[in-house]
Amino acid sequence: MGGTEASVREAVLLLSGGLDSSTVAGILHAQGTRFRAMTISYGQRHDRELRAAERIAEYFGALEHLRIEIDFRKIGGSALLDNNQSLSSGGKGIPPTYVPARNTVFISLALALAEARGCDAVFIGANAVDYSGYPDCRPEYIEEFNRLSALATKRGVEGDPIIIIAPLMQMSKAEIIKLGTELGVPYELTWSCYRGGEKACGVCDSCLYRLKGFREAGIRDPIEYENQ
Amino acid sequence: MGGTEASVREAVLLLSGGLDSSTVAGILHAQGTRFRAMTISYGQRHDRELRAAERIAEYFGALEHLRIEIDFRKIGGSALLDNNQSLSSGGKGIPPTYVPARNTVFISLALALAEARGCDAVFIGANAVDYSGYPDCRPEYIEEFNRLSALATKRGVEGDPIIIIAPLMQMSKAEIIKLGTELGVPYELTWSCYRGGEKACGVCDSCLYRLKGFREAGIRDPIEYENQ
Repeated sequence: MGGTEASVREAVLLLSGGLDSSTVAGILHAQGTRFRAMTISYGQRHDRELRAAERIAEYFGALEHLRIEIDFRKIGGSALLDNNQSLSSGGKGIPPTYVPARNTVFISLALALAEARGCDAVFIGANAVDYSGYPDCRPEYIEEFNRLSALATKRGVEGDPIIIIAPLMQMSKAEIIKLGTELGVPYELTWSCYRGGEKACGVCDSCLYRLKGFREAGIRDPIEYENQ
Repeated sequence: MGGTEASVREAVLLLSGGLDSSTVAGILHAQGTRFRAMTISYGQRHDRELRAAERIAEYFGALEHLRIEIDFRKIGGSALLDNNQSLSSGGKGIPPTYVPARNTVFISLALALAEARGCDAVFIGANAVDYSGYPDCRPEYIEEFNRLSALATKRGVEGDPIIIIAPLMQMSKAEIIKLGTELGVPYELTWSCYRGGEKACGVCDSCLYRLKGFREAGIRDPIEYENQ
């Protein structure tokens, strides 16, 4: 994605504290790209993953860790924002955990931070392979956002648009975990579960994809689960 | 903009409480399009215009008026967010009041609300003629956002994208004011000044464009000014 990654001196990383964005932090660290982490607290069920994001940002020496709060519960429209809805997809189609236009809001905010701080790129852990179903996790969506970025910002108008890069887009969860393990990503600090218990639940979609990924990678998941 | 406006049954309106978005509220009311107003409080210098937005939403019978708070001051990069910077452009180019990626963040949030509530369109008062210089107030930007909308949301994937409509895009401030006056927009309730005084300052860029618009329209501006 992006094409001109070589010219990225400094970037904004959308960091949730989950497995994917934490792996992107490891990639940026390994390639020597300085980055500023942005974590968006949007009224999800718990803030376990926000704490995970803080620890990952610190671990990989982010220049800054900006936390932005937006109350997406006022908007609604997702099982992730509603304590009474099931989090399980139970089948095909777009999962009930889809949050309307979430990545569009997230990338927009990261674009704003990138422009305000003079960064060249926005990195996002979006991934189309093992977690498909979200419209805003597809390569064509990221490509389109790059076209919008060129028109939306002062930087774009002046000739040097901020690029949106999703380095994990075409990788399976197992491939992501293998790469992250090689890069020394501390997966024990990350959090993927949709629930906010002491241990990860092991049964929500997010836990299931994570567990499947570690299993297929032949690597032990360092976090603890209630059920597995 | 948009092309399929005829099929809009219900819309989200980005309503700042200023002259342009209040005129769009009048247009929606006049054409019988039900709408939900969204006002984004982003740490601008005062909340005079937020109160104006409330009154306009009520006046035109918005189905809902949602206020979302985002602390853009954490991001920065604009004179509008900094009490120590001059608000005057004093010349050409992109004005210092440009807020990085602001309209992109705003339209994204409106898109989220539109999808969550089953609305067909997002209306924005963006205007390229008399207030040029902002990259995210140009027709090509809105066109590009329509392409993104089709890819970004569940609605888009399922075949019926939410459209972004900027009905004032090609109108001068004088034309907007003439139209709004015909439609009965209560301009005495609106607020355009970048400062938050008792009366509008009459000297900031926003006051100057407003005053020029009323003058050219041959209509008296019903609000009071400190200097004029």
